[in-house]
Amino acid sequence: MQAQRYTADMPTAHEATIIDGRAIAATLRDTVADRVQAMQRAARLDAIIVCGNPAGEVYAANQARTCESLGIEYTLHTLPAETTESAVLDCIVKCNNDEACTGVMVHLPLPEHIDTQAVQRAIDVAKDVEGVNPANIGGVIYGHRTLVPCTAAAIMHLIESTGVSLQGAEVVVVGASDIVGKPVAVLLMQAEATVTSTNVHTTDLFSHTRNADVVIAAAGVPGLVTGEHVKPGAVVIDVGINRVRDEATGTTSTVGDVDFESVLPVAGFLTPVPGGVGPVTVAMLLRNTLEACLRSHS
Amino acid sequence: MQAQRYTADMPTAHEATIIDGRAIAATLRDTVADRVQAMQRAARLDAIIVCGNPAGEVYAANQARTCESLGIEYTLHTLPAETTESAVLDCIVKCNNDEACTGVMVHLPLPEHIDTQAVQRAIDVAKDVEGVNPANIGGVIYGHRTLVPCTAAAIMHLIESTGVSLQGAEVVVVGASDIVGKPVAVLLMQAEATVTSTNVHTTDLFSHTRNADVVIAAAGVPGLVTGEHVKPGAVVIDVGINRVRDEATGTTSTVGDVDFESVLPVAGFLTPVPGGVGPVTVAMLLRNTLEACLRSHS
Repeated sequence: MQAQRYTADMPTAHEATIIDGRAIAATLRDTVADRVQAMQRAARLDAIIVCGNPAGEVYAANQARTCESLGIEYTLHTLPAETTESAVLDCIVKCNNDEACTGVMVHLPLPEHIDTQAVQRAIDVAKDVEGVNPANIGGVIYGHRTLVPCTAAAIMHLIESTGVSLQGAEVVVVGASDIVGKPVAVLLMQAEATVTSTNVHTTDLFSHTRNADVVIAAAGVPGLVTGEHVKPGAVVIDVGINRVRDEATGTTSTVGDVDFESVLPVAGFLTPVPGGVGPVTVAMLLRNTLEACLRSHS
Repeated sequence: MQAQRYTADMPTAHEATIIDGRAIAATLRDTVADRVQAMQRAARLDAIIVCGNPAGEVYAANQARTCESLGIEYTLHTLPAETTESAVLDCIVKCNNDEACTGVMVHLPLPEHIDTQAVQRAIDVAKDVEGVNPANIGGVIYGHRTLVPCTAAAIMHLIESTGVSLQGAEVVVVGASDIVGKPVAVLLMQAEATVTSTNVHTTDLFSHTRNADVVIAAAGVPGLVTGEHVKPGAVVIDVGINRVRDEATGTTSTVGDVDFESVLPVAGFLTPVPGGVGPVTVAMLLRNTLEACLRSHS
């Protein structure tokens, strides 16, 4: 049999497996629903929102519907736009002290006159379903079983879904943000991976990503990670959510930090944008809500 | 002038600068003493020890003397060997609530019937001068100015003493312990270095260390990092404290994780063991005690 010859213009035989974030999120939600039904105690998520946050209001409405469908009670505390920081803190303390409430979250952004980090620190560590209280990610360093930030937890879940073992794997995190890059690096260290955290000052990104079994692109730069950056067969998780405008057509679209077309024929597994990390992150909040409730029993 | 020719048997002209940890610690103590004297409020360190901890008792006695010499009040709370966890927690709560106490620490090890992590979590974040409450290292991820674990803080201080800039530097942390490796990786990420955390499962340690501007050896393995691992001119920080026995002579000595003889002609800067990280770590507790007191004013 004659070997087929490819040219650069022809599609290669290999293509990465696309990780279906929406399907994984649906499975997570189903599992949460099953376990909520089996629990002896009701789970109740209390969300706090300050008026003048239309994106948050849409998210909260979706959240209310999703919680209802999973059997989780949902209470939205709506505070006026001119509310004070101490009023927000009071609301959190009430939720912390309310035994019926098993999870607490605050919709961001908060108005500028309120210190977001002070508010997040006030959330009871055991009810902090978004994992935004620093004690939760700090606890991971000491091996505690804590509630971890949802995006970082989603990334870990997506990697695990490929069956790739993290222990001893070479993992590169592209981007060192407080919200994603640093927390996921901590989770990866806890999983006993060899972890490299890179940032905008990294001089030779290529030399790191090119040898990585897993690349996590979380820099907020459209198309930063290309096929040339990736080792054949690697797992590539795209955390970027960038709105870009096509000047020719005048349309805007959402793209990731990964150059999908060039990485697809090289990687072993690849998450799409949209439909990858995003939906799993949303589902992780529900899993954390379940976890917080389960632990409050024991 | 004729160039001198070296052979492998001859000493090389180059030798790393030995970082004098004892001198750096002395400077840190002097700075603390000066600033304590200038403060309007007294600093008081409260240490808790459970009987049956002879090493801790020696350390506490030294600590009492050092604090006195720096103008820091020192109160040692001694609990009986059969004390309960709740008695230790009560003692911490008393210190947390005592306005005259500005710093709290617990001498380890605690008896086995006491949960060390639960005790550490109970220490007021603002008085946690050893940086052992997870909220403190977690806060670093979110860019808070917190009290950080003393060994990790000492490593950062030693690197800074060389004048090497961490932003954009390639740094490899050999060893991912909860006490040193993981916390220092977090501090290095915050300093905008490119950070690689390795552990016992890392398959190719050499490929990482060989390209690093800074190598931190914190694996607890005598002589693990050799000259072959190190890039010429790199900063090498040796965190290892290993007691080894010379079978021929029957004597024991303390050695680090770095093979001093082979690294000395390659590295640019090198910490010795003993006399490197150790004394600076002890001095960091005093600096944290000062910091905690200063912040309690503001």
